[in-house]
Amino acid sequence: MFAETKSLNEECGVFGIWGDPSASQLTYFGLHSLQHRGQEGAGIVSCDKGKLMVHRNLGLISEVFKNLDDLKRLSGDRAIGHVRYSTSGQNSIENVQPFLYHFYDLDIAICHNGNLVNAKSLRRNLEEDGAIFHSTSDTEVLIHLIRRSQKGTLIDKIKESLNLVKGGFTYVLMTEEKMFGAVDANSLRPLVIGKMPNGAYVMASETCAIDTIGAEFVRNINAGELAIIDVDGLTIEKYTEDTTISIAAMEYIYFARPDSNIAGVNVHTARKTMGKRLAIESPMINADIVIGVPNSSLSAASGFAEESGIPYEMGLIKNQYVGRTFIQPTQELRELGAKMKLSAVKGVVQGKIVVMVDDSIVRGTTSSRIVTLLKEAGAKEVHVRIASPPLMYPSFYGIDISKSAELIAARMTIPQICESIGADSLSFLSQEGLIESIGLKFDMPYSGLCMDSFNGDYPAGLYDYEEDYLNNMTEIQKENLRGG
Amino acid sequence: MFAETKSLNEECGVFGIWGDPSASQLTYFGLHSLQHRGQEGAGIVSCDKGKLMVHRNLGLISEVFKNLDDLKRLSGDRAIGHVRYSTSGQNSIENVQPFLYHFYDLDIAICHNGNLVNAKSLRRNLEEDGAIFHSTSDTEVLIHLIRRSQKGTLIDKIKESLNLVKGGFTYVLMTEEKMFGAVDANSLRPLVIGKMPNGAYVMASETCAIDTIGAEFVRNINAGELAIIDVDGLTIEKYTEDTTISIAAMEYIYFARPDSNIAGVNVHTARKTMGKRLAIESPMINADIVIGVPNSSLSAASGFAEESGIPYEMGLIKNQYVGRTFIQPTQELRELGAKMKLSAVKGVVQGKIVVMVDDSIVRGTTSSRIVTLLKEAGAKEVHVRIASPPLMYPSFYGIDISKSAELIAARMTIPQICESIGADSLSFLSQEGLIESIGLKFDMPYSGLCMDSFNGDYPAGLYDYEEDYLNNMTEIQKENLRGG
Amino acid sequence: MFAETKSLNEECGVFGIWGDPSASQLTYFGLHSLQHRGQEGAGIVSCDKGKLMVHRNLGLISEVFKNLDDLKRLSGDRAIGHVRYSTSGQNSIENVQPFLYHFYDLDIAICHNGNLVNAKSLRRNLEEDGAIFHSTSDTEVLIHLIRRSQKGTLIDKIKESLNLVKGGFTYVLMTEEKMFGAVDANSLRPLVIGKMPNGAYVMASETCAIDTIGAEFVRNINAGELAIIDVDGLTIEKYTEDTTISIAAMEYIYFARPDSNIAGVNVHTARKTMGKRLAIESPMINADIVIGVPNSSLSAASGFAEESGIPYEMGLIKNQYVGRTFIQPTQELRELGAKMKLSAVKGVVQGKIVVMVDDSIVRGTTSSRIVTLLKEAGAKEVHVRIASPPLMYPSFYGIDISKSAELIAARMTIPQICESIGADSLSFLSQEGLIESIGLKFDMPYSGLCMDSFNGDYPAGLYDYEEDYLNNMTEIQKENLRGG
Amino acid sequence: MFAETKSLNEECGVFGIWGDPSASQLTYFGLHSLQHRGQEGAGIVSCDKGKLMVHRNLGLISEVFKNLDDLKRLSGDRAIGHVRYSTSGQNSIENVQPFLYHFYDLDIAICHNGNLVNAKSLRRNLEEDGAIFHSTSDTEVLIHLIRRSQKGTLIDKIKESLNLVKGGFTYVLMTEEKMFGAVDANSLRPLVIGKMPNGAYVMASETCAIDTIGAEFVRNINAGELAIIDVDGLTIEKYTEDTTISIAAMEYIYFARPDSNIAGVNVHTARKTMGKRLAIESPMINADIVIGVPNSSLSAASGFAEESGIPYEMGLIKNQYVGRTFIQPTQELRELGAKMKLSAVKGVVQGKIVVMVDDSIVRGTTSSRIVTLLKEAGAKEVHVRIASPPLMYPSFYGIDISKSAELIAARMTIPQICESIGADSLSFLSQEGLIESIGLKFDMPYSGLCMDSFNGDYPAGLYDYEEDYLNNMTEIQKENLRGG
Repeated sequence: MFAETKSLNEECGVFGIWGDPSASQLTYFGLHSLQHRGQEGAGIVSCDKGKLMVHRNLGLISEVFKNLDDLKRLSGDRAIGHVRYSTSGQNSIENVQPFLYHFYDLDIAICHNGNLVNAKSLRRNLEEDGAIFHSTSDTEVLIHLIRRSQKGTLIDKIKESLNLVKGGFTYVLMTEEKMFGAVDANSLRPLVIGKMPNGAYVMASETCAIDTIGAEFVRNINAGELAIIDVDGLTIEKYTEDTTISIAAMEYIYFARPDSNIAGVNVHTARKTMGKRLAIESPMINADIVIGVPNSSLSAASGFAEESGIPYEMGLIKNQYVGRTFIQPTQELRELGAKMKLSAVKGVVQGKIVVMVDDSIVRGTTSSRIVTLLKEAGAKEVHVRIASPPLMYPSFYGIDISKSAELIAARMTIPQICESIGADSLSFLSQEGLIESIGLKFDMPYSGLCMDSFNGDYPAGLYDYEEDYLNNMTEIQKENLRGG
Repeated sequence: MFAETKSLNEECGVFGIWGDPSASQLTYFGLHSLQHRGQEGAGIVSCDKGKLMVHRNLGLISEVFKNLDDLKRLSGDRAIGHVRYSTSGQNSIENVQPFLYHFYDLDIAICHNGNLVNAKSLRRNLEEDGAIFHSTSDTEVLIHLIRRSQKGTLIDKIKESLNLVKGGFTYVLMTEEKMFGAVDANSLRPLVIGKMPNGAYVMASETCAIDTIGAEFVRNINAGELAIIDVDGLTIEKYTEDTTISIAAMEYIYFARPDSNIAGVNVHTARKTMGKRLAIESPMINADIVIGVPNSSLSAASGFAEESGIPYEMGLIKNQYVGRTFIQPTQELRELGAKMKLSAVKGVVQGKIVVMVDDSIVRGTTSSRIVTLLKEAGAKEVHVRIASPPLMYPSFYGIDISKSAELIAARMTIPQICESIGADSLSFLSQEGLIESIGLKFDMPYSGLCMDSFNGDYPAGLYDYEEDYLNNMTEIQKENLRGG
Repeated sequence: MFAETKSLNEECGVFGIWGDPSASQLTYFGLHSLQHRGQEGAGIVSCDKGKLMVHRNLGLISEVFKNLDDLKRLSGDRAIGHVRYSTSGQNSIENVQPFLYHFYDLDIAICHNGNLVNAKSLRRNLEEDGAIFHSTSDTEVLIHLIRRSQKGTLIDKIKESLNLVKGGFTYVLMTEEKMFGAVDANSLRPLVIGKMPNGAYVMASETCAIDTIGAEFVRNINAGELAIIDVDGLTIEKYTEDTTISIAAMEYIYFARPDSNIAGVNVHTARKTMGKRLAIESPMINADIVIGVPNSSLSAASGFAEESGIPYEMGLIKNQYVGRTFIQPTQELRELGAKMKLSAVKGVVQGKIVVMVDDSIVRGTTSSRIVTLLKEAGAKEVHVRIASPPLMYPSFYGIDISKSAELIAARMTIPQICESIGADSLSFLSQEGLIESIGLKFDMPYSGLCMDSFNGDYPAGLYDYEEDYLNNMTEIQKENLRGG
Repeated sequence: MFAETKSLNEECGVFGIWGDPSASQLTYFGLHSLQHRGQEGAGIVSCDKGKLMVHRNLGLISEVFKNLDDLKRLSGDRAIGHVRYSTSGQNSIENVQPFLYHFYDLDIAICHNGNLVNAKSLRRNLEEDGAIFHSTSDTEVLIHLIRRSQKGTLIDKIKESLNLVKGGFTYVLMTEEKMFGAVDANSLRPLVIGKMPNGAYVMASETCAIDTIGAEFVRNINAGELAIIDVDGLTIEKYTEDTTISIAAMEYIYFARPDSNIAGVNVHTARKTMGKRLAIESPMINADIVIGVPNSSLSAASGFAEESGIPYEMGLIKNQYVGRTFIQPTQELRELGAKMKLSAVKGVVQGKIVVMVDDSIVRGTTSSRIVTLLKEAGAKEVHVRIASPPLMYPSFYGIDISKSAELIAARMTIPQICESIGADSLSFLSQEGLIESIGLKFDMPYSGLCMDSFNGDYPAGLYDYEEDYLNNMTEIQKENLRGG
């Protein structure tokens, strides 16, 4: 579930609460539960008696709010918050959300999870018309569209603007009078609604944040919906009828927290089922032990062990103290530094035939390092089992897998990957296995999943990214698409 | 293995390396592997061409060494280091180790793991004789004894001094010419020796630190031994013949990292065996799932599951981002703040009969909170299984369980504890079960374990603590001792 | 010259350099020399091979650039910089300049000294047309005007925009290809051009910054001029012909550094002449000593002493270590805290009849405190001599004297002020005395000075401020205007 | 008075207060007034109900106490404090005072100003007897002597110890029951006593600290005296009868604040008189202006101007914002960086014959730089007048002038120095002129001044420094001593 050991990163988590006197503190707790979705920046905007106030900075939510006073200053019974991961390296304070705008006629705060595929062209059109952008974030595009909309009401301006942006996204907005939550027309990124015992409404990227603060789950915000919360309570409207359900499969595989439910499916259970299915699809009869790569693969590994009857052991442990502040060692010790995050348990793996279950392989460097760790610790054989299909295509809807050339499965066949990472054998879960393990029941392609990274099928289109994507396809990608 | 969720704390980890040009950097890595033994302060002393240099501060090793320059400044081919946990609340910079002393005739650095039971009386005697102490740490006592010893050589001074201090301890000392490692006469606290491929010698509190930097295990430093490393290599001498092997059982149960071996026994394996034995001693036939309390009880829980055949599930997850900087919420939200560290996975436990395996119960507050979490998440029944015997007596040899009144098992019977924490049933591992699960083979009491917290048998005596201990015994403690 | 002991604050200093390989370091030095013009924020934008880079933050320039690396990162042979004082309390990072904008067709950086009197109405018009502002700073208005201008070239866009903004201002702008410096149509705020020995051009708010980095003074940028620096060298164009010279008299009296020249007149010399003239206008025959209030009044005090023949003594000293980080003492000690900045020298003033020369009186609280200090230290009599006329009207062109009610001279007659501050006598310099002491020779009203705060004559109009100003005039202000 | 522009540094300031409920806050204010005596570290120890508490760190007092809470935590009605300058480069936290010791029978805090000339041998003797030192500071020696004294009472132990240490020093000590202030047998370093309106007693290195907090001057602590403050009030005892008055002349010339009185003589007045005397001894008939080097020479310069009738002008200004955090520029700009602290006022000095008055010349580098600055600014001639005699000998009693080779006057004749610094003429004040300008009336050598740096006469002996001093004497020093 946590993104530290590989180059797979979610782009942000959002949160909002309306109607609780501890709004900013509950937002602080909620953002803690969403911290795995972004560790580079965090912020909260609260609203008290018509005044919107912000505190945000680079770092973890616990670093941004080191003093209780900073939180107490954010008074009021409504607040929105954000944890951020940046894909583009523009990791500067200007890009930390929520953004807060003070206009002569309106104060509005906004935060965002996901990626727009037509942001670049929208931005250029806006700039040609005199607009000034202050961040490199896509989030700003929506606010420019809203402010330039000729519609009569703010709700209609927001709806019109949501129809102009394409890709995978959720937005949470707050004015003095209303809070809004919007989901893209494919529901690629998740956003759920909960309700506190005192009647306050909550929105969050994942149900774990709802649970953490003691709220009850109300419903998901579905594809093309705009949720509106104000003194009259909760209203859900559609801003477009042109919708398809295609929930990002990677949320189940890697990003979401195991205790979250997405579209009614628990993430841990989905992962454990993937592990079981993997054990059926790619059995390892003579192995001594099954181990998982902490932390994201432990569910799948326990499923594999249970299904196969091979004992599940703690063969790798993660050093929880190696955080972002870990200094880079000198060149000669760099390999040692990389080894600090994970350790192989010699007493467990020595002399054993090991099944190592991981959730995915991106560039292959992490897998290669772990196999080496296990062999150095005395493992006789290391058989790698990946609880998802090969990542063959980049993602453009809010996950940081944007370059084809970085994906080892876009450049190599499975036997080549196996050799490259030094494993004794390597298997992946099938696409069907993945879809059935998650078990969505929508009458939609892939039962309602977005499988873009596995099959190159982009449900929300590519827009500004299309030309570059097509120009940089690998032979394996092209062949696979022809084959498909 | 990690001490965050309960009030059980180890007192420090020590490390030393002799003969490697990257000595301070390897110490930095080694201390990372020992970080679970103390998170309040850290430091390194290196020695280059006869000059000893120090860098130390409050915080994690990664916080103390934020800049590579601080590490590079510690040049030389030998270094010692320390991570600190303080038992007494004297969490000030003065107490952060290693201590470094510049004398007219000698430079010497010293660091220490453990607790002396006669430190107070030794200190008073020394002060009456004009000695000046600058910290509240026991560590300083040894250096005063050494400097006042009338013996002829430094080695003899050290040996004489080691015979004067009582309790559980390991010391690592470094002068311009030698490095020393000492273990108490009961080997209550662990210290091991390793060797780098280039011949450099390493000492560390746990084997995981040896493994991390790529060294081979050489041997344990045994009860009453003093290891001496210098240009002539490694020498082991005994400073006393009056020794008994009584290794702290709590190292296996809770403190040590799962990938460490103590006295040749892997910690994860010992824990898993405790879990298996617990499943035999206290079966739960009709349970639906087994869950462990992350992270220290996961090994025991998987053992319980494997032995019992009940599926092992991830029913609790730990928020890895809730660190030491987490701000204290206001009073009304305090309970919520406490819930941030651990979350119950509703999708897993809802409607289930749950076996919750934990390694130990100290004050009972954490267990109570976890049972509540699970029930709130919908668990039908929660049966608590503790993979060690009841903690009935305080510890004085370097573990932070010093007050009888804080130990719930010193105040309540098991049925009372069960009711107090809200569990549907509660069982502990037997003392025999613990001893046999760890499986030491020494021809010593309890096969070579120190069982003090379970049976009140203090192998190294109580000295300065005796009076207070006897005056504060509970009825249950007294009765239990009579019974024993 | 330095603003710490009274509530008079300049609004910023600007700097730019074009054509020197150490551009950002020279900007750093130049901004140090302008630090007295703003201590709340600072920043530099450099340009290297067409790329504009920024580093800015709250604090002094030496705090913003604590590491040489931050400065080295700002590579390139051209840079602009800013030190900021905020008038409105919006002391947040968003408002720290220079602002840097990345457009699809242009990168541009901008910084600003002064205040626009029609910013509010311009901003509202722009927002109604869809513009989004990200700061509360007036500086942003100009960039919106530029981006929305329909003119063909960037220079023409800038010129058009400069004609739309009213008030007292200087701007420095930088693109990949050019650097611009603009001065308002009244030359209320100063901006000068210098040239380095290597031919690099420099712009700065004051000549002291030119001198500091070893450049030669070239010329002032005059009212209504736009200086353009690029590969073809320096060009000066007029953006408007509708100009009047009215240089802010307060620059000579208080703000500028004594070593700067404004319009060819040295500031120290002007102040010393004011002091001499004051000694002629308001003699104190029987006084024992003349003292100045450090640091801004020392020049005037020495002039008074020289002219009057009364010895000049150091009767007050300023504690240079009481900076911005000085913590606020508790209520009962607040008076003591205020006394930390200035101390009376008992050994000098005891038993003496003292002439205390100060540059101005704003609210009267500082004067009152100093008179008390001197009397407590034993001064027999304290005669206050102010080296400028009474501050009777607010300023709107970039100096923080914006509320009529705060000005003691707008509420009291001179005898009332004298009593209020506890002085034995009080005199001010006459308006004619001030004009003649400075000695400008322009054939303009007041010989080319802006005397607004003394006589209510606002050469650049009041625009958005007019209504509020007229509604809040005091009786003394009205009467004085009638009298004038 | 402030030490920033030359390599002359005082070694610390001390403060104590007994009997005021705001003791630590008043200490904070008092230390601010003494900040010029040391900027490298600061600390306060307070005592509340028998408990001594400390807060100290590297940096200015305002940096050490950034939060009012840190000060409030130091509760109690008595406190001592310290500001530190380190001579030896051992600028580490361990050396920051006050030192606080907790013994089984006593808590004691100690701080110190000055330098012991026999510290090294005392320390070695103590170490040979088993003592352990934790800092490199001389201050620790006294506490070891006290703890090892065989005398019966603490007062007698302190007196015995004070007789063993040699050099120039003041000590302030505090226990739960008493506060002590001690001055060396030559009163080389100053320590004064004051009394608050509420009866609380105060001790401080300079009277300015007494004045700042509103206390009345009571008396100086004289050579060989020990002041004792407790519930019975103030008692002064002599710890030795072997005393001579030889107050460091450098306190008047450079170190002390102008508003302080030492032995009843105001420092500003002494400096102004030195300037007058210098004008008589070394007249400059045809000069246009007199300027002083800010800030320490302004008093002397105004005296020179007054006596000579030549106008006093502000020809040099000091940039108050160039503090300790100023980053070191790259090599090519280092000269520029050095110029940031002082600027010549071109408008004042251009075309003028300038008398530049400075208080002293140490290595000559600063003087050389200032002469260059003035000439570059257009001064026609620069005549340097130094308001003290040549610094020919090192100082060992608490001033950082310890190496003969660094003193330009120990290596060159006056004409050589003149040429070296590029001046048109150079004169120094005579030794008689200095003594008479200060005007002490003691019937002692040099009227009660220590003239060591001018004439090599060391009233408290040299002890551990003697050998090195004699071995490193220059020819000029030897010849001068023979001549004397």
